[in-house]
Amino acid sequence: MATMDAEGPVHELTAEQCWERIEHEELGRLAFRLVDEVHLVPINYVVQGRSLLFRTASGNKLLAAALHSDVAFEIDWHDDRAAWSVVARGRLRQLEEDEQHRLDDESRQPWVPTLKYDVIELVPEVVTGRTFVLRRPETDSAQ
Amino acid sequence: MATMDAEGPVHELTAEQCWERIEHEELGRLAFRLVDEVHLVPINYVVQGRSLLFRTASGNKLLAAALHSDVAFEIDWHDDRAAWSVVARGRLRQLEEDEQHRLDDESRQPWVPTLKYDVIELVPEVVTGRTFVLRRPETDSAQ
Repeated sequence: MATMDAEGPVHELTAEQCWERIEHEELGRLAFRLVDEVHLVPINYVVQGRSLLFRTASGNKLLAAALHSDVAFEIDWHDDRAAWSVVARGRLRQLEEDEQHRLDDESRQPWVPTLKYDVIELVPEVVTGRTFVLRRPETDSAQ
Repeated sequence: MATMDAEGPVHELTAEQCWERIEHEELGRLAFRLVDEVHLVPINYVVQGRSLLFRTASGNKLLAAALHSDVAFEIDWHDDRAAWSVVARGRLRQLEEDEQHRLDDESRQPWVPTLKYDVIELVPEVVTGRTFVLRRPETDSAQ
């Protein structure tokens, strides 16, 4: 039980290794700020080049308000022995109608059935990632 | 490919159902704000009553700065057909030395070996959660 950013056997990932992981996953979490509140929502995304695209219900007030603000996007994975986490930082942009074909061209379709949606793009400015060696001590109570 | 908070087959979880899920998981993500930046880090936590405890490397500057600010904590799960997400909002507090036994009493030990650490408590003020029915259309291109 520790933050995953604790001191210890932690290794930085290269940007290329981060992108490999981002491209491999489909579900991440997006954190953004509205006035004094931090919001955190899961998003289902696709990667195009070096940007992330995701759909949101048309008129989603939360995300509309988050446009043009700095956001953080995160994916992670773990089993009992190891874990990694990748964080991308950047700004959101809503695609114009004549750009939305970018998402329609993708083979992956919406997971949640919904008729009307907006397409949001996140172009990360910074991508960082770390791997962790985990340990679940079995007889550590003598410490 | 859609935000998981899209319109559609979405159902709200009760607070009790949210806590069941929080108690069952061990790894979540914490979003917090430092001046204009939103940070998002994975954390490995334990539940005590209605609060979450997690360790952080002693002197972790990020989290020290986040103390007393509003934060959002999230866990989620999905397979090909369904997903859920639970978000807890509240404030962080660093446990005093004479309180740290609260964590030592827990049977679960640190995942990342580290000698010195601080213990942070998150007492959620609001806990919300939703379940989603997912669908991966196979022949949706005729839309």
